[in-house]
Amino acid sequence: MILTVTLNTALDITYRVRSLRPHTSHRVSEVCERPGGKGLNVARVLAALGRPVTVTGFAGGATGEMVREGLRTLPGLTDALLPVAGATRRTVCVTDERTGDSTRFNEPGPMVRPAEWSAFQRSYEALVAGADAVALCGSLPPGVPVGAYASLIRTARAAGVPVLLDTGGEALRRAVAARPDIVKPNADELAELTGFHEPTRASQDARRRGAHSVVATLGASGLVAATPEGRWRATPPARVRGNPTGAGDAVSAALLAGLVTHRPWPDRLAHAVALSAATVLSPTADDFDRRDYEALVNRVSVTGEASAAQAR
Amino acid sequence: MILTVTLNTALDITYRVRSLRPHTSHRVSEVCERPGGKGLNVARVLAALGRPVTVTGFAGGATGEMVREGLRTLPGLTDALLPVAGATRRTVCVTDERTGDSTRFNEPGPMVRPAEWSAFQRSYEALVAGADAVALCGSLPPGVPVGAYASLIRTARAAGVPVLLDTGGEALRRAVAARPDIVKPNADELAELTGFHEPTRASQDARRRGAHSVVATLGASGLVAATPEGRWRATPPARVRGNPTGAGDAVSAALLAGLVTHRPWPDRLAHAVALSAATVLSPTADDFDRRDYEALVNRVSVTGEASAAQAR
Repeated sequence: MILTVTLNTALDITYRVRSLRPHTSHRVSEVCERPGGKGLNVARVLAALGRPVTVTGFAGGATGEMVREGLRTLPGLTDALLPVAGATRRTVCVTDERTGDSTRFNEPGPMVRPAEWSAFQRSYEALVAGADAVALCGSLPPGVPVGAYASLIRTARAAGVPVLLDTGGEALRRAVAARPDIVKPNADELAELTGFHEPTRASQDARRRGAHSVVATLGASGLVAATPEGRWRATPPARVRGNPTGAGDAVSAALLAGLVTHRPWPDRLAHAVALSAATVLSPTADDFDRRDYEALVNRVSVTGEASAAQAR
Repeated sequence: MILTVTLNTALDITYRVRSLRPHTSHRVSEVCERPGGKGLNVARVLAALGRPVTVTGFAGGATGEMVREGLRTLPGLTDALLPVAGATRRTVCVTDERTGDSTRFNEPGPMVRPAEWSAFQRSYEALVAGADAVALCGSLPPGVPVGAYASLIRTARAAGVPVLLDTGGEALRRAVAARPDIVKPNADELAELTGFHEPTRASQDARRRGAHSVVATLGASGLVAATPEGRWRATPPARVRGNPTGAGDAVSAALLAGLVTHRPWPDRLAHAVALSAATVLSPTADDFDRRDYEALVNRVSVTGEASAAQAR
């Protein structure tokens, strides 16, 4: 079982409007809502890939109930979210029919109390014992200490369970020092962490800061990876046009699937780029067509070299 | 008891952002949510004025539950909303901290089924029997026939209960012919109904179309009234600066309070303008300071003339 952690789960709401005009009133022509937050998105992809997955984190209030109701419709996914007194946040994404552009509004999330955070840590320790891998994803809600991910990484490492980390800012900086197995930042998050804008150099610097492996997503250009086994760059076959929402979460899901099946790194990276591109091609965010994914895997270019010493 | 009808209730959500930039992501710094829809807003003001008020209409889904929960915190207000299978809509209002401007997104509302509409009509007839006045407010949700307000007006008139109507577009056009006691359009709604842009002329035309009395709100300029007892214009003492949200609902509430206490028209209009101005002055939308309201009442200018024949 793969365990994904989403401390700041969300009810993701998407609005379609004819044309976004600031300081006016808009009639919304279409409303979609579903469970959100990076860890839940990663879990949705893993469940679609047929991987048993358990989700944990917090859910509270009426919005939390709506999130849990949405999760019940996903086969293969186990809900181990913990209750919290505050209400789960909403995110509102407004899509302009004319241009296809999106404007997002992200609520901060509920204030998590110290007793709730302690209860989560106890529950997490028990869940980790039964997990093949753990993914720690997204922002921290108010009240959760900024060093939270570092502490969750130490718990997993003590249990011998590998950890993938996908977050940014100060939460990432603190967590990297706790030596996560894989860190998956985007180019901005990686530059903010390391001060280097060139992704290969920045990835190596992030490894020096504590990450065993670093996989940096570069949008349409694919990704670069710096690992103990070698360094690679993986590129999609052609420019993929579509909705990039969920492309990063698809990369995390593919890396986790590759981790638990002990695939070699170049193979993991090819799958990550192919699944990410298939997600961009799909008209629905965070969704993908299995035939697109399978057709793309063999067309991803992976270049680079294995390390002389195949350490770890 | 005053009965207010809100067929398309809403969960009103307000977001504060530093600066609205289309096609970017925003961190919401403050979230407020509360029951909404014109009839619920009017009821909130009536309850604050100490008038017993009952609200009806539809509420469904998790958002409907949140609306009903919000109503429970208002003393003097009785919840007689009917369940509906679809979910109550949300409205999202994004306030730009820098400019103070608002950008609104209004969901369409749930599809109301024929059986739900029939159940509402039966329940409404029973509620009307115990009411001193009825207010029909706001837009119609999908599935409710466009002639809905005309039918609700006929039911109230058959029971001898006066009706105030606050809606626009085709719903207003159809309802006016059913002879409501008071119609309260804004300048745009009145012009759309009558084709006249000059409010005095347009108000008289709306009376010819069936409304007994017409009170047109003209924003900061106050209001004009055409009634069987005479024609008046009521103007606030000075330009009132603040948040205009809820100013129209305050006018409806004051007109209903004046109707059930049989105040003369000039007195009703002075109270309507004063309550509306006090609402604009208040930092919270739809709220007012009682001292502002009382101080303003005697400073509203009401000019005009009573009809020679004090008909009706």
